[in-house]
Amino acid sequence: MTEPDGSHSTDGKELKSLLFDPFSPSVDTGFWQLFSKLKLEVIKSSDAPIEISGYFSSGSSLDGSNSLFSLDRGSLEKDMKIPDHCYRTKGTFINTNTFDAFKELNPKEKSQEVCLKMVQAIDNKSALENPEILSQFILLSYADLKDYDFSFLFCFPVLHHPPLLTSSLSAASSAIGEAHLASLISQTTGIVSLYDVDTFTVLPFHSLPSILETNKTTNKRLGIAIKDPGTSHEHPGWTIRNVAYAVSYWLKKLSMTGIDTNIVFIRELVQTHRTRNDKGQLITEEESARLYPQLGSLFCQTTIQPLSELPDLVSGAGLAHSGWERNAKGGTRLRKVSLKQFLDPNALADSAVDLNLNLMRWRLAPTLNLTKLKELKCLLLGSGTLGCYVGRILLGWGVRHITFVDRGKVAFSNPVRQPLFKFEDCLNGGRPKAEAAADALREILPSVTTRGESLTIRMPGHPVSGPDMDGKSAEEQAKDDVLKLENLIREHDAVFFLTDSREARWLPTMLCAFYGKIAINTALGFDQLVIMRHGGVPQADTITETPILTPSHPQFENHPALNADPHLGCYFCTDVTAPRNSFRDRTLDQQCTVTRPGLAPIASALAVETMVAITQSKLGNMTPVNVSNDAEVDVMMKRTEMEATAQDKEDNGMGMVPHQQRFFLSTFSSTNLEYQAYGQCTACSKLVRAGYAKEGFDFLLKVFNDPDFLEDVVGLKKFADEYEAPKDDDDENDSDSFELL
Amino acid sequence: MTEPDGSHSTDGKELKSLLFDPFSPSVDTGFWQLFSKLKLEVIKSSDAPIEISGYFSSGSSLDGSNSLFSLDRGSLEKDMKIPDHCYRTKGTFINTNTFDAFKELNPKEKSQEVCLKMVQAIDNKSALENPEILSQFILLSYADLKDYDFSFLFCFPVLHHPPLLTSSLSAASSAIGEAHLASLISQTTGIVSLYDVDTFTVLPFHSLPSILETNKTTNKRLGIAIKDPGTSHEHPGWTIRNVAYAVSYWLKKLSMTGIDTNIVFIRELVQTHRTRNDKGQLITEEESARLYPQLGSLFCQTTIQPLSELPDLVSGAGLAHSGWERNAKGGTRLRKVSLKQFLDPNALADSAVDLNLNLMRWRLAPTLNLTKLKELKCLLLGSGTLGCYVGRILLGWGVRHITFVDRGKVAFSNPVRQPLFKFEDCLNGGRPKAEAAADALREILPSVTTRGESLTIRMPGHPVSGPDMDGKSAEEQAKDDVLKLENLIREHDAVFFLTDSREARWLPTMLCAFYGKIAINTALGFDQLVIMRHGGVPQADTITETPILTPSHPQFENHPALNADPHLGCYFCTDVTAPRNSFRDRTLDQQCTVTRPGLAPIASALAVETMVAITQSKLGNMTPVNVSNDAEVDVMMKRTEMEATAQDKEDNGMGMVPHQQRFFLSTFSSTNLEYQAYGQCTACSKLVRAGYAKEGFDFLLKVFNDPDFLEDVVGLKKFADEYEAPKDDDDENDSDSFELL
Repeated sequence: MTEPDGSHSTDGKELKSLLFDPFSPSVDTGFWQLFSKLKLEVIKSSDAPIEISGYFSSGSSLDGSNSLFSLDRGSLEKDMKIPDHCYRTKGTFINTNTFDAFKELNPKEKSQEVCLKMVQAIDNKSALENPEILSQFILLSYADLKDYDFSFLFCFPVLHHPPLLTSSLSAASSAIGEAHLASLISQTTGIVSLYDVDTFTVLPFHSLPSILETNKTTNKRLGIAIKDPGTSHEHPGWTIRNVAYAVSYWLKKLSMTGIDTNIVFIRELVQTHRTRNDKGQLITEEESARLYPQLGSLFCQTTIQPLSELPDLVSGAGLAHSGWERNAKGGTRLRKVSLKQFLDPNALADSAVDLNLNLMRWRLAPTLNLTKLKELKCLLLGSGTLGCYVGRILLGWGVRHITFVDRGKVAFSNPVRQPLFKFEDCLNGGRPKAEAAADALREILPSVTTRGESLTIRMPGHPVSGPDMDGKSAEEQAKDDVLKLENLIREHDAVFFLTDSREARWLPTMLCAFYGKIAINTALGFDQLVIMRHGGVPQADTITETPILTPSHPQFENHPALNADPHLGCYFCTDVTAPRNSFRDRTLDQQCTVTRPGLAPIASALAVETMVAITQSKLGNMTPVNVSNDAEVDVMMKRTEMEATAQDKEDNGMGMVPHQQRFFLSTFSSTNLEYQAYGQCTACSKLVRAGYAKEGFDFLLKVFNDPDFLEDVVGLKKFADEYEAPKDDDDENDSDSFELL
Repeated sequence: MTEPDGSHSTDGKELKSLLFDPFSPSVDTGFWQLFSKLKLEVIKSSDAPIEISGYFSSGSSLDGSNSLFSLDRGSLEKDMKIPDHCYRTKGTFINTNTFDAFKELNPKEKSQEVCLKMVQAIDNKSALENPEILSQFILLSYADLKDYDFSFLFCFPVLHHPPLLTSSLSAASSAIGEAHLASLISQTTGIVSLYDVDTFTVLPFHSLPSILETNKTTNKRLGIAIKDPGTSHEHPGWTIRNVAYAVSYWLKKLSMTGIDTNIVFIRELVQTHRTRNDKGQLITEEESARLYPQLGSLFCQTTIQPLSELPDLVSGAGLAHSGWERNAKGGTRLRKVSLKQFLDPNALADSAVDLNLNLMRWRLAPTLNLTKLKELKCLLLGSGTLGCYVGRILLGWGVRHITFVDRGKVAFSNPVRQPLFKFEDCLNGGRPKAEAAADALREILPSVTTRGESLTIRMPGHPVSGPDMDGKSAEEQAKDDVLKLENLIREHDAVFFLTDSREARWLPTMLCAFYGKIAINTALGFDQLVIMRHGGVPQADTITETPILTPSHPQFENHPALNADPHLGCYFCTDVTAPRNSFRDRTLDQQCTVTRPGLAPIASALAVETMVAITQSKLGNMTPVNVSNDAEVDVMMKRTEMEATAQDKEDNGMGMVPHQQRFFLSTFSSTNLEYQAYGQCTACSKLVRAGYAKEGFDFLLKVFNDPDFLEDVVGLKKFADEYEAPKDDDDENDSDSFELL
């Protein structure tokens, strides 16, 4: 017979030691996903312990499984949001960098550390002020981020206290009555509180020492109300254990003997757990407790004994504890989870790719700005050997916007050298190259933003003539082609010149200088190559929305296209004649690019690496070859000397940004060159850009129809007339006879 | 009414000028295919005229089409085999290197040249001795070998002679009788002969001048029997025209007037043309002639007139000629043929690939031996980033035997950096890498011989232990793995080391030195790379069939594995300790190869180019870094100084063959190093190879289980004990900390 205060005699009943339901941790995939991201981007190679949060429910589950303990994405956040009827516990999380290090971790040592701190907190009362300290967990893991495999050990450290003997564990609603139970539940806002066994008035846990002191004289029973994560009506959950230890500790500290205690194990009934009965009707809380006794709060009477001896608060000597999850054999339970199966393959691919790149930032290139690369839009003029390799290497660098331009079709000779094409692409006349290249990129990484554009790049010395097509004159067709190229260049950030003739580079060179775009030029000979970046034009970012600045434009006079030469030379700056039609009379070995097959991958890699280096430099397209030695740039950028020095260190995260590189396979050697922009350059000089700004397409038309026109524009004509062109001596190693892929 | 001699009066009948069926050339695809091959491999950029052969049939065809003239593969051979009843004609073939050059050819000029020679030959009687000279053709073409498009013009040059007037063209069998016709056919073995119109005795064509001289007095009719390619019974074919010119020429030369002539146009009935009649019965020749009058020989009487004037034999002045095929508008007929549709796509791909390579030999690398590369068997240890790039670049070089080795599976992070894999390969746990790489190569070039092998490369310091598998002990499993690798190395010519740890290179290094294989080593750091070829062992070709030489083997004492160190160092030659287990304690950024993505393509290209350079050197794997400066190699090869100098020029077709190359992306610069083999090297020294020769697998087992063992073998242990290892200072740019893909 239960008395109103819940106390009853233990006489005549056998006393049994209370057993406790261990926690069963459930780690949400979101936890590991977020952790993977943090590990890559923030934590990097550190394996220092980090503080995380978890929570348990006092609402219990219906299935009678072990007390659920949850970690999710929020566990890694500073202020984890906890669901209703759930309680936060703090955890120590150590993730090792290698599986070997994981195996070498000493779990007992880790839990000893946590337990010692817990006892210190009990002793200095901070754990009484904040009883969350008594519910902690430890997570040790090795995260294999390459394969999304996670190995981990869980611990809910418990301090060993004298056994809690009791004759019975009963339903609290019967033992103390529904009203008192409801009152205790509503008053106990944290995990644990004490209460007056007569009045059911709740007292904060930190009043434990004073209550015990009082007990010395009153010998009054102690009441403990605790949120219980247990799911069985035969055992309470884990949370009471360190609370009981705290009581035992203070009993010993106060040199007291055991104290009779009533414990209410509060199990809050979560709404969802009592929705409907067998007949589909919504059931009352009482009914629910009858139907599912394991969901109801429990009650027991016991005597909490003092510790036999206080542990050493410095060395931890005398501290007995446990709490590591056990496997069937009684050893520490190693949990493993593989997330691969839960993840969308496309997302997996994306994050796997990011993984490799992020790893660079761990130690080797901490300042690497991957976002810049991810958002960079690259235009590849030419989708042959160089275009394919450049596309692939850009993808490797995390570039996600790649547009291919080509007007050819895939030929049978292409796939062995052009790494985005396969045999199948050659059948039935061949697929359009630009389109096939874009499709191939998508087969590699479905999330990439890529497309192929078929486009004729108009060239100096290739006159605009021919029949009407689709009702358009030859001039109208040329104008369309120019506008299409111009728009492509404007909507991209970096342009790679990978076409197969010298003069096909003229228009893109001029337009890139006009719009201040990064321009990377690549040319191959038989066993040598040239890579160069074109000089940048300052204040290119002030370019307005108007595609071609007209004299009526308000910014016309100050337009950079009219007022500055680039800071470094372009591909045409070393020429003393305008580019002309080089297509006539090319023999087969001149038409097909005859190069040692190893040359194109080297050239493509150097081209991409040069561009990446530019993006990582604070001066971007204006980066000089040696930042620290270039006072002019500092002046131009209006930097003080000190600013320059400080900034230069940061600027060069990826090392030097060369201007022109040459590589020679005949001697396996390389050289770097640097030259200034030529004020009379037929492609990038302000004279030419101003001509385009003023006259627009009409200017280009004159260039296409008559290469001499350009020489007139820049004043080279007179010079060229005086200059005797070298005779063609059939020297195939002539560095000017580069064939271009 | 026809008289027995075939002569009949022309009285009362209108005389008409004979018209002639022009030739219709048929160029077999085999001709263009063989020519394409010759052009690439032999003719190269030359556009000098070449002499070819064609043939016409006097058997005619049933379909009434123009006289067929054929070119096939044999046309390009010295002694063309001509089918029965067919006659060879010689041709002049000019193929230009560009379409522009083709368009600029002057056909009239070319036929003028041929005709002038023909007249000279008529004048000096050589054309009378060899009447084939009178049936010639000219072929002008532009062969677009990239697209298998051929454009060409055909000419059967004819010298203009006075018209042959005749009242009728009749069946020869009726005009001269079957017996005489048969007799003429059987006696006329060449294209043309003269005959006595009374006796039907055949006289050689070169008797023309003397017969004409005789005619001056006898005024006897001239008889001409000529093999006729015509297919119409209304016109003879083309062959009579230059014969008639020759007669006209000599009439003029001999200051004669016209000569009455009987002409028999012989059309041999080819057996196949008369097989069966409408009722399916085999028909007689006579019946055949009746059924198919166009198949029968023709006869006519005419008077051949002298030329009005002899042409100038030097300048060609006064020479009138024609013969170019005409189109409907009367212009020169441009024929075009595209062979793509006739060719098997696989074969097309093969030859297209060969095209690119062969073009190198035109001017840039004439001594390049592509057959060596085509037959070279390459083994790629590792099918990751480096393996994929190396495989692709080898394909580009024409290597057709590529075996991939790897034991991993394709992961989601791979495709963006490993250019033989795509997203799809990562699904469902990932395809085995080696197999997927081989499949990808086949998708690029179906004819490639490639396969993937899943294999564990056993390593020093990785003890052989573990459970039995498939009834085999750990040792037996290790032995299987070693044997598999050993057999792979033995069956390949060149081995690329592209695996991801230092110690995985030990066993292949030792085995490559043992068997004298080309060994190319590649290692990547974050922004730098090392490529090296291992030194070669002399007389490696004397290796016998026995996989592991045992002391009982007759050649044991002299075995190169026991008697020489390599001529250059290997990857381990600069080490003073044996390779050990480096897998322990590698953090994620150390496990994943963290490199700038441009590095792998550069490294792979350099690795392949180094190997190609080795294959093109006469000393092969024994090539020193500078052939001409290395007296030692000459001594070793027992070459005299003169031989050495002469040979060196040829040897270096591809330029220098470096030993070790390093490339630094941080400064975009490279350097070449060279070092000798170390006599105490733990991998390539004769001490180690002798150990393996003597003890076989047992020797390796000791190495796997205890790395110290190797140091004992080479005497490094003592040295190592004295040597204080540098402390790990976490210097990620330490050049010894190369991560390997």
